[in-house]
Amino acid sequence: MPHIPLPEGIPGIRSLALQYPESGKYLYELVQILLRHESPLSEAERELIAAYVSYLNECEFCCKSHAAASRYLFADASGTVDLALHDYRSAPISDKLKSLLSIAGKVQADARTVTEEDVALARSFGAVDRDIHDTVLIAATFCMFNRYVDGLATLTPEDSQVYAEMGERMATKGYVVPEQK
Amino acid sequence: MPHIPLPEGIPGIRSLALQYPESGKYLYELVQILLRHESPLSEAERELIAAYVSYLNECEFCCKSHAAASRYLFADASGTVDLALHDYRSAPISDKLKSLLSIAGKVQADARTVTEEDVALARSFGAVDRDIHDTVLIAATFCMFNRYVDGLATLTPEDSQVYAEMGERMATKGYVVPEQK
Repeated sequence: MPHIPLPEGIPGIRSLALQYPESGKYLYELVQILLRHESPLSEAERELIAAYVSYLNECEFCCKSHAAASRYLFADASGTVDLALHDYRSAPISDKLKSLLSIAGKVQADARTVTEEDVALARSFGAVDRDIHDTVLIAATFCMFNRYVDGLATLTPEDSQVYAEMGERMATKGYVVPEQK
Repeated sequence: MPHIPLPEGIPGIRSLALQYPESGKYLYELVQILLRHESPLSEAERELIAAYVSYLNECEFCCKSHAAASRYLFADASGTVDLALHDYRSAPISDKLKSLLSIAGKVQADARTVTEEDVALARSFGAVDRDIHDTVLIAATFCMFNRYVDGLATLTPEDSQVYAEMGERMATKGYVVPEQK
């Protein structure tokens, strides 16, 4: 049960944005910018970074929903997203994305540990400034979302079908500020 | 030196918001809502929560600047803010604020560890839903800012006078989206 009253039956960040719309508005607009607007990273790749950081933070709601969005966007029938979450080094993804996931993991654990060598390795695989920037900010942002959702013990659905539908909605409609009905 | 090109001589989050204004806009608007708009927590208390989480994350730039803002807002000549950062349990602050700093610390380390008992204790000292909400979201948000600033190795000034001036500016003018000159 959530630590504070929230709209019943509404999961995760959505319940928080409905109850606290002043901050919710900016949180949705921020994630829409980060995951959907212009970037050298594809939407599928950015969703994977979000899911990976949420996986490391053990935030079930954010991990399952963004993994579902990434699966939908990658048109991933062969389990690439799940493999990448559990062991990205052996997943069939680009070396550039592997090097960025390594940076995202360092940002999650202790951002001060990101080194010039980490960044140089990513650049050697074709990453540009914007890839580095977006990776660090997406990783940092999900360290926020994960804590907001879990620190207030928001509703986490258990049915995997719920996440599949959520992921498709996130992939096709993006992040639209929820409005009270 | 920053990991990506940023405006020279501009510290921390300001350099990032200038170089990447699309996301910077929402980050500044979010922090202005959280630390300056309506809340049962005073601006001084909210700045202290921000500084405390940044202290735990060892983010020197965010800790020093928000501690300076909190000192200015508390009109703190007797070192309360510094005492609270290092050992809030023995600091001359309210029991309510102590219980909220304890929750903020749990959000920083692992948000899933915030318990019903933690929340009940804060409520027993007069905290209302909005205190709990704002504490968790401020703590979560600074887990983001700390990582964004440190993950890209932005400029961290060393001169304490720079932070005192920054803190006064943050306290009196709030968080205004920086504009390229």
